[in-house]
Amino acid sequence: MWMRHTVDLALRHGVAIGAHPSFPDLNGFGRRNMVVSADEAKNDVTYQVGALQAFTADKKLQHVKPHGAMYNMAVNDESLAQAICESILEIDPDMILVALAGSRWLDIAEDMGLKVAREIFADRALNADGTLVSRSQPGSVIHDTAEVVERSLRMVTEGKATAITGEQIDVQADSLCLHGDTPGAVEMAASLKRELEAADVEILPLARILG
Amino acid sequence: MWMRHTVDLALRHGVAIGAHPSFPDLNGFGRRNMVVSADEAKNDVTYQVGALQAFTADKKLQHVKPHGAMYNMAVNDESLAQAICESILEIDPDMILVALAGSRWLDIAEDMGLKVAREIFADRALNADGTLVSRSQPGSVIHDTAEVVERSLRMVTEGKATAITGEQIDVQADSLCLHGDTPGAVEMAASLKRELEAADVEILPLARILG
Amino acid sequence: MWMRHTVDLALRHGVAIGAHPSFPDLNGFGRRNMVVSADEAKNDVTYQVGALQAFTADKKLQHVKPHGAMYNMAVNDESLAQAICESILEIDPDMILVALAGSRWLDIAEDMGLKVAREIFADRALNADGTLVSRSQPGSVIHDTAEVVERSLRMVTEGKATAITGEQIDVQADSLCLHGDTPGAVEMAASLKRELEAADVEILPLARILG
Amino acid sequence: MWMRHTVDLALRHGVAIGAHPSFPDLNGFGRRNMVVSADEAKNDVTYQVGALQAFTADKKLQHVKPHGAMYNMAVNDESLAQAICESILEIDPDMILVALAGSRWLDIAEDMGLKVAREIFADRALNADGTLVSRSQPGSVIHDTAEVVERSLRMVTEGKATAITGEQIDVQADSLCLHGDTPGAVEMAASLKRELEAADVEILPLARILG
Repeated sequence: MWMRHTVDLALRHGVAIGAHPSFPDLNGFGRRNMVVSADEAKNDVTYQVGALQAFTADKKLQHVKPHGAMYNMAVNDESLAQAICESILEIDPDMILVALAGSRWLDIAEDMGLKVAREIFADRALNADGTLVSRSQPGSVIHDTAEVVERSLRMVTEGKATAITGEQIDVQADSLCLHGDTPGAVEMAASLKRELEAADVEILPLARILG
Repeated sequence: MWMRHTVDLALRHGVAIGAHPSFPDLNGFGRRNMVVSADEAKNDVTYQVGALQAFTADKKLQHVKPHGAMYNMAVNDESLAQAICESILEIDPDMILVALAGSRWLDIAEDMGLKVAREIFADRALNADGTLVSRSQPGSVIHDTAEVVERSLRMVTEGKATAITGEQIDVQADSLCLHGDTPGAVEMAASLKRELEAADVEILPLARILG
Repeated sequence: MWMRHTVDLALRHGVAIGAHPSFPDLNGFGRRNMVVSADEAKNDVTYQVGALQAFTADKKLQHVKPHGAMYNMAVNDESLAQAICESILEIDPDMILVALAGSRWLDIAEDMGLKVAREIFADRALNADGTLVSRSQPGSVIHDTAEVVERSLRMVTEGKATAITGEQIDVQADSLCLHGDTPGAVEMAASLKRELEAADVEILPLARILG
Repeated sequence: MWMRHTVDLALRHGVAIGAHPSFPDLNGFGRRNMVVSADEAKNDVTYQVGALQAFTADKKLQHVKPHGAMYNMAVNDESLAQAICESILEIDPDMILVALAGSRWLDIAEDMGLKVAREIFADRALNADGTLVSRSQPGSVIHDTAEVVERSLRMVTEGKATAITGEQIDVQADSLCLHGDTPGAVEMAASLKRELEAADVEILPLARILG
């Protein structure tokens, strides 16, 4: 029900659609690490992306971005990263993989011939090497809207961010992630969109950027 | 795991692949009637067919045959029958619907422009009007292998069957169903294949018959 | 997580806990009719009540009230009604069954030796024979808060209600149901509680009423 | 269905019943490691043990033995081991925990006041310190029936085993595990039972041994 409805809504508003597959962990909302084989992960991705794709009919899915624990584990697990890429290539080699900017995962995907979008996070602190500060560390998630907007704007327009340890680091990205389930997410998205447009940043579907 | 493996196995042996979607009733193996709306049924079919389709990669799915209670209910429920057909048309209008020979469902599907395969059952008794005798009636399921083979052969080669009430009835079919989970199913299939071939019946994938 | 937390919260506030088992229909939130056997229904109830009971530790569950389609079907299906009662009796014969006031289900339960609580609905219109007006009929659900409060008060304090066709009917009840997922449910509950207490009606856990 | 049937069958044959809870990993049959919090694991155990307990009616469950990955992780994770023990104590402090002989888990359980049964495995090789050789090592699982029977007999009657590295080690156990899903399991169980009885070993429900 909701799936077809959401797809219709997105298409009517010119919003591109992507799949957000996860480990099969309904109780944990896909946010708990699971030790699955590469084949199992590949099948989980194929099943979920295929199911969603059938709802978009002749409109293709634009991208695949794994969810939760599958995303986080793929950043550090080459075998998992590769399994996800294989699944995407088999289903539709024109789909874009969205993965963490600066990660080894992006290199693997490009070597395999996938289109990739480099993703940064609006509300997550960075280490000096560009990786995300672990959620178990204090200061890893930025809750202040003004700060989220300010650092997002700087990453997008200047390609720079300040690491949690103070260093200035380079950031190259195609996509900026805002979590839809954080309190105030809608207001934050509106505010961010306003500021980005005020700074002459155009917000486009990934397929039009990476075309 | 098993899904990708089964698909590979089928493709290696020249066996065409179809989807067998059901109501979302894991506990009841899809064999219990559920009162779902037409939209809900359509979404259930789209989700399951889409998921399987992604495993066949560039090889298309050949057909869709709803499973268990969804199949049985669609025979007598025009709204459900139509919802299933809509789903198939949206996913791929070249896919074939497999549905009960002589049912109103087949007419609905053809009116909507779907390719259809008329299905008969090797081991089920028929009423004088060509419908299946309900499983709740004595004699509805035929357990004797020789009798199953004999009546199957006659339906296929002569287009005739004897109803449970004794009448001779006409039967036109493209597909003959044998349930894989009945005891002795493999032996029965081998025996049936042997007898059909001995009678010069060629067994082909549906797409080559209906092409 | 939420289950243990909710149990703790209830016990801290002196709220009695009951189980609300349903058909195994996660997608449909247990609100779709399913044709299950009496044995299957009994097992579904036993499994769900048992799982919840383990979270209440030495504090017993007070009651069982089937949810959604299982409740509605049991009102008109003696075999299902009896299966639910058997499950409750086997788990703990001190638990109370909550079922529709005036229904045959209550008689079946009492004949089997179960304690029963007669339930009425704050926001549902009644037929002249005391049954609920089907949701498919216009006027079946009452949305106006003032009207819900007024008719609830009259049913509780006078034992009377006006049927949708105008007749005055008798209503005897131990429990008044307010759906927690209707918009404004919290305000309606607060308003109803205030009015009932203003009319000197004491609101107590069922076990203290039926003791 | 099967649950009530299996419980009846066991009770009729004087076989004691225990719960075998696992991580909520239906696809992976509970055999894949999952990173869940102690609270989540405790809830998973409570839910599953409670559900089964309701099917045994007034006959109590005898023991709890976590399944698959939950068992294996608890051997090396004190927080998980403790969470499982807390769940058992809250549901019924008379239930017995079955856990790996020689593991820290057993000490934790006994410190918390639980009854414990020390478990050994008929078909698994041991390290010199008494722990199981990891399944990823060659020789970890013993497939030869004669060898399984011979080493089981020696562990039970002499309290001795030969480690994979050749050392003689002491083994104290109350329960011997045979996996029901290995090919030939029924024959192996019969053979083992015959040999144990021939050696005057009495096989009893755990509650009668630990009483």
